[in-house]
Amino acid sequence: MNLLILYIHPNHTSLTDAFLQSVLKGSKENSNIKNIQVLDLYEENFNPVLLFNKDKRRRDMYRDPELEIYRDQITWADKLVFVYPIWWGRPPAILMGYVDRVFAANFAYKDKKGFQTEGLLQGKSVVCISTMKGPTHYPLFLLNNAHKALMKKAVFQFVGMKKVTFFEFGYMESRKGKQAKKLAKIQRYFQKIAS
Amino acid sequence: MNLLILYIHPNHTSLTDAFLQSVLKGSKENSNIKNIQVLDLYEENFNPVLLFNKDKRRRDMYRDPELEIYRDQITWADKLVFVYPIWWGRPPAILMGYVDRVFAANFAYKDKKGFQTEGLLQGKSVVCISTMKGPTHYPLFLLNNAHKALMKKAVFQFVGMKKVTFFEFGYMESRKGKQAKKLAKIQRYFQKIAS
Repeated sequence: MNLLILYIHPNHTSLTDAFLQSVLKGSKENSNIKNIQVLDLYEENFNPVLLFNKDKRRRDMYRDPELEIYRDQITWADKLVFVYPIWWGRPPAILMGYVDRVFAANFAYKDKKGFQTEGLLQGKSVVCISTMKGPTHYPLFLLNNAHKALMKKAVFQFVGMKKVTFFEFGYMESRKGKQAKKLAKIQRYFQKIAS
Repeated sequence: MNLLILYIHPNHTSLTDAFLQSVLKGSKENSNIKNIQVLDLYEENFNPVLLFNKDKRRRDMYRDPELEIYRDQITWADKLVFVYPIWWGRPPAILMGYVDRVFAANFAYKDKKGFQTEGLLQGKSVVCISTMKGPTHYPLFLLNNAHKALMKKAVFQFVGMKKVTFFEFGYMESRKGKQAKKLAKIQRYFQKIAS
């Protein structure tokens, strides 16, 4: 299995980085995982602003040479792992812009008759690991689980990635957070996953 | 009333621009609206990537000189109008990043005891005008209304802007779209609003 890990945080001194390290530790002990690539969107200085106009058409975006490296990573990967904090109820803007630009029509999905579409990234699976300051029942009840709905249905399942697993960790800036226990849980998960 | 209009689209040849023009036309005919400012995030080349680290601390973001112009616009405005397309079930990344960077703690809200917060932008109201390719019942039923939940509850009401009005227009690339009727509706709305 080829694992592509996307790390989305401005620096490496945060708890988000500790979760990245747990993913890496576990994965390196798992013989089902043959290869690992890490894409650090901040370090990469990824530009999240999707531009299109009369000269640079949206329909040609799937072959934009600037984004070829990112498309190739996704094509290569069997499993995508996203590690990010929750800001304003959802992932940071740089990850939203990665989706806006890289998941282009005719690379990630294609339009069919009417409003039907077909996902072109089938067979790949996704794990999302997110950390938040407050309790996790806040987005669940007050926001109709908006973060998960958007990521799972509007993005991953739309492009054909049917299996999406979430680990949402709350109270991450609090003593109540059981941080060590949650980090160990992630490490164990990646030690064992078979597909 | 001071009106701040945020336009979020890569260019001005789109239907999103037609809605911007309807807002402007209506507003100019409304004697309740004294002043209008338009912030075009794309034209402005707004950087949506929130950075913080040991030198540039998140707690100081509310007085970041680079963002002062945007904070001043919000302070000045009585009503904020956002005009944007829906991509992947939510607004473009550049708008998400505007929120990440400009709506900083101690400008837009402040932390209180425990996980309590207080919105600092009270008294202002919001109108969101969004256009989408497909039908509007898709996000309503399949995505638990995620876009509205995130914008209304996780952003605007969180910072104290209690009155939030949505106009979600579907079928915007289709003959079924009744585009002219919808543009006229927006123009009439802004001709009449009293607060």
